[in-house]
Amino acid sequence: MCELLGMDCNVPTDIVFSFSGLSARGGRKGPHADGWGLALYEGPVARVFLEPAAASDSPLARFVREHPIKTLLAIAHVRRKTRGAINLANTHPFFRELWGRHFVFAHNGTVKNAFDLRLGRYRPMGKTDSEHAFCHLLGALANEFGTRPPRATELAAAVAHHAGRIGKGGTFNMLLGDGQQLYARCATKLHHIVRQAPFKKATLCDEELSVDFAEVTTPKDRVAVVATMPLTRDETWHVGEPHTLWVFRGGKLTKTLAS
Amino acid sequence: MCELLGMDCNVPTDIVFSFSGLSARGGRKGPHADGWGLALYEGPVARVFLEPAAASDSPLARFVREHPIKTLLAIAHVRRKTRGAINLANTHPFFRELWGRHFVFAHNGTVKNAFDLRLGRYRPMGKTDSEHAFCHLLGALANEFGTRPPRATELAAAVAHHAGRIGKGGTFNMLLGDGQQLYARCATKLHHIVRQAPFKKATLCDEELSVDFAEVTTPKDRVAVVATMPLTRDETWHVGEPHTLWVFRGGKLTKTLAS
Repeated sequence: MCELLGMDCNVPTDIVFSFSGLSARGGRKGPHADGWGLALYEGPVARVFLEPAAASDSPLARFVREHPIKTLLAIAHVRRKTRGAINLANTHPFFRELWGRHFVFAHNGTVKNAFDLRLGRYRPMGKTDSEHAFCHLLGALANEFGTRPPRATELAAAVAHHAGRIGKGGTFNMLLGDGQQLYARCATKLHHIVRQAPFKKATLCDEELSVDFAEVTTPKDRVAVVATMPLTRDETWHVGEPHTLWVFRGGKLTKTLAS
Repeated sequence: MCELLGMDCNVPTDIVFSFSGLSARGGRKGPHADGWGLALYEGPVARVFLEPAAASDSPLARFVREHPIKTLLAIAHVRRKTRGAINLANTHPFFRELWGRHFVFAHNGTVKNAFDLRLGRYRPMGKTDSEHAFCHLLGALANEFGTRPPRATELAAAVAHHAGRIGKGGTFNMLLGDGQQLYARCATKLHHIVRQAPFKKATLCDEELSVDFAEVTTPKDRVAVVATMPLTRDETWHVGEPHTLWVFRGGKLTKTLAS
């Protein structure tokens, strides 16, 4: 099992505060010591940092925390392996190009009969059920739409459909980003919060670290954060309902679809 | 114009010495200040560091030099833009998955009529002639072979053929890696060296930095390094002949093909 973290904003924001909480769970405060990854979009391209080791004492994870990169959309993951050895090829998030932009994917849970899912143009590089399911999902989207569907709602509906299908009978909590929208499917466990004015102070659950968001934001800013478990102890997080897909855009929850 | 660096070895080796020389040309000693990138294979997967900024004073490039990662195959690039703005999407090396492994590509020069080259399943995320040519090349390989050709020589012949075709009338010095072989096409300017026993001392051209390779190697080690211009001042580099493709495997030059 693993922990997921996603962020979607209407102004470039750094993910350091949330990533610090997640990193703590990657080895020190949590059992997720088998790898970590962080994808940060710049336009259609994701910059991806991956390491098949514990985030809590990784020099690269520390570098990323100490040199914040602002982004509109980010996906992070800390891994506790269930399937597949500890190596780079099995480290989330996974990513591929479709329609001239990166799609980034991270998964928590186990996909039932994952290796029976038919593959199209995307092939796994590692041995996880997660990457196999992602390659299947992206191949299905590529097949269904020759080019990127002009309406964002159309793509969201397709993601909800395929995620629901793939998740049937298993545990398919997942985050998928395309640089424009963040899709978050809840199978069993997912939470989110939208931070907007009036901003307040927040304190991590797993670290003695607080931020007063009022000091680092403008009144127009809006930041949605999705995580397996709430990352802060003094904010109210929305609990995901199993078999639903949240769609975030511009820091806002725009839709909740059955999935 | 840009500078290329590739490394192919028979034992995991860090690229810090050569990358230090290349980094110096990325802004401080050279005009290639518009971006840098470094791809390091671990099995079929490349770990890729990219930054649309000068390598010579990049904290991330310094981090990579100070935390060496050993690899059997690496490709690096420093960019001086001719086409396409300075941003992540336009930063080399470019990479995509084909047949369950990453293909990594970096280019020096200008591709004639690049944007007329037909695209298949791979679409550019940025605006460079280089990425367009890479997407075309990889799409052509995907079309030609349904699965990875069992004989490495077959793939090398196809790369030589397509690279020669794409390079016609333009300047297509390029490096392509697939984690098993390193392909290096010379249009106008490319050099290589194979370091093997008896190892000697080498000194960078652009930095006061020397390494006595005899101290950091075993007699069985073999490391091939390809670069636009020789990186060391006290070794003999082989000069590439225009319209040829070098194929490296296991730290050895295995073939020189017309291209």
